[in-house]
Amino acid sequence: MLKRYLLAPGPTPVPPEVLLRMAMPIVHHRAPDFIPIFEEAKEGLKWLYQTKTDVLILCSTGTGGMVGAVNNFFSPGDKVLTINGGKFGERWTEICRAYGLEVREIAVEWGYAVRPEQVEEAMKKEPDIKGVFVQASETSTGVYHDVQSLAEVVGRYEDTLFVVDAISGLVAHDLRTDEWGIDVMIAGSQKGLMLPPGLAFVSVSEKAWQRAERSRCPRYYFDFLKERKKQRDNQTNFTSAVSLIIGLNETLRLLKKEGLEAVFQRHARLANATREAMRALGLELFAKESPSNAVTAVEAPEGIDGQKIYKVLRESYGVTAAGGQGKARGKIFRIAHLGYTDTFDIVVAVSALEMTLKGLGYPVQLGKAVAVVEELLMKEVQ
Amino acid sequence: MLKRYLLAPGPTPVPPEVLLRMAMPIVHHRAPDFIPIFEEAKEGLKWLYQTKTDVLILCSTGTGGMVGAVNNFFSPGDKVLTINGGKFGERWTEICRAYGLEVREIAVEWGYAVRPEQVEEAMKKEPDIKGVFVQASETSTGVYHDVQSLAEVVGRYEDTLFVVDAISGLVAHDLRTDEWGIDVMIAGSQKGLMLPPGLAFVSVSEKAWQRAERSRCPRYYFDFLKERKKQRDNQTNFTSAVSLIIGLNETLRLLKKEGLEAVFQRHARLANATREAMRALGLELFAKESPSNAVTAVEAPEGIDGQKIYKVLRESYGVTAAGGQGKARGKIFRIAHLGYTDTFDIVVAVSALEMTLKGLGYPVQLGKAVAVVEELLMKEVQ
Repeated sequence: MLKRYLLAPGPTPVPPEVLLRMAMPIVHHRAPDFIPIFEEAKEGLKWLYQTKTDVLILCSTGTGGMVGAVNNFFSPGDKVLTINGGKFGERWTEICRAYGLEVREIAVEWGYAVRPEQVEEAMKKEPDIKGVFVQASETSTGVYHDVQSLAEVVGRYEDTLFVVDAISGLVAHDLRTDEWGIDVMIAGSQKGLMLPPGLAFVSVSEKAWQRAERSRCPRYYFDFLKERKKQRDNQTNFTSAVSLIIGLNETLRLLKKEGLEAVFQRHARLANATREAMRALGLELFAKESPSNAVTAVEAPEGIDGQKIYKVLRESYGVTAAGGQGKARGKIFRIAHLGYTDTFDIVVAVSALEMTLKGLGYPVQLGKAVAVVEELLMKEVQ
Repeated sequence: MLKRYLLAPGPTPVPPEVLLRMAMPIVHHRAPDFIPIFEEAKEGLKWLYQTKTDVLILCSTGTGGMVGAVNNFFSPGDKVLTINGGKFGERWTEICRAYGLEVREIAVEWGYAVRPEQVEEAMKKEPDIKGVFVQASETSTGVYHDVQSLAEVVGRYEDTLFVVDAISGLVAHDLRTDEWGIDVMIAGSQKGLMLPPGLAFVSVSEKAWQRAERSRCPRYYFDFLKERKKQRDNQTNFTSAVSLIIGLNETLRLLKKEGLEAVFQRHARLANATREAMRALGLELFAKESPSNAVTAVEAPEGIDGQKIYKVLRESYGVTAAGGQGKARGKIFRIAHLGYTDTFDIVVAVSALEMTLKGLGYPVQLGKAVAVVEELLMKEVQ
């Protein structure tokens, strides 16, 4: 028997009560039963997004939401600025190019956050940039980009939309859609929202809605104006992913019960304990600044393959963390503390890591990093 | 207490053992555990589709699959032929137009099937038509289009792809992808496949794959060449909808156990019993020819609103069937016999309908139509 623990940055574990709720018989999405369910989901998402604007619910992965954020608000030839500091920043560039946008890219070294001044400079140079695209939490590097400061910079340009991929960032970080002026923000079900994969969420500001009227990208499945119309009537444009939306209401209820501030603090606390444990092990964080509260990326020690650490964690200890993606493959491993995660998930992760690293010949004093975690998390709960 | 019965043409009921299987803890889609799961799903779909070609698994509703069938194999300006005999035929036209294709449309009166000669005539007139789009089962009218004969006609044109929306048709009808020469066929999880909404499936012939190399429609989320590459390696291009794919293996196992021929016969038998029961009630089928084995559309009796019948069935008897869509709204109601459906689902539906119609003032001899169902289904099981 090997008991399994999931500590990957998505899909994340789903609380058992949510899994069971989704196992209830299917409800029809066009029948009246579904209206209060959909209404509750919309309201809950507005609460989580800290917004009064629409948050659309789509049946796709988060990437589908990213595509919709491009093909609904921009047109071929539009000049846009993408911030590429990892695999998902790269994805912004790819999507914008796929739709014929003219892409300016700020290449940020992996492990670093974009500086708001870089965006300011780019905007000053080309004030006709129609949109700025960034990740809140860049899952591939474990870096959090300073969404608030970036929003402030972009907000000075009346004709520029600020688009945030918060797929792994939402729930882990305090992201204030309305207060900061985020025009479009994407999230996914299988991250902080503690659900199986299958739903994307997208908030859209008034400014972005106006832009949608003029967009000339071809679209049909991700057609946000049509979705808005339908969703305001508590329907989706196409078949609703009913089970997932019912599950969403359950996870939103759990988050509401905990309270938004407490949710953010929990993620900050667990992330901090994870980072301190890595330091106690003598390991280097891959994020050289502004680490994400969703996932901690850690450099593999000299001479040990990051993928090997991932593999031993999984195969010998039943702990599914993550390896590196793209050019970080082999160099790092990643431990998520996102969604349905608490003290002993971190204890398990760090304990498994101590044993894994020692087994791989890295000098570890067993229990030392776990003690750091206990110290930090004990302090917080007393 | 009002016990609920779902007899709508999607989402359809999910077998309890499948719901519980999907309630198991989340598996990570990039971890080795997932490889045999994905492999099994691919193989099972090939079996169901009766094909040796790739059947892609997408995280979207069926409509997402339809969009992918347009934007991967065609280019703006391509001449295509859509067969529009209902709400979903209309959708083919809409999607093709959204991507800038030049659409020729055969408008088929609702309730009728397209005649293969109509397609032949259109093709002869414009042999440069690059694709023909049809529904197998047109859910809005309850009509089955003769896919086999249409495939034969289109198959004569080397440069024309035959694209079939089998979203409600697959499982209910014997659809032979390879034998008949269907180039692209779309299905969805929440129909005959007895799963919650969230997955689309698309088979792609070698001829269609060649076309994909030349297509100039912008795309990113539904990029089939990239999906093919990934899925041949037992991954999806973006996050896999792991729970649904695990559920898919369960429902495929159920279908395999029953046997493909038996599955089709069950649907034919239940559909026939439903139709005969409607006749016994003195009701007219909306499908004037070639009725679908997935759903039976029935004309509301003179003076009774079809939506009212739908409403009473639901609210007084707990039976969720369907009303009419688009221009058939108010004129018809629809009873599905699709997926996880057996004898007593039809008995319940017909019994509820007898009581509903009598309550609405329509002359009904209670039990008479139920007797017809019993007669027909009893004969079959003895």
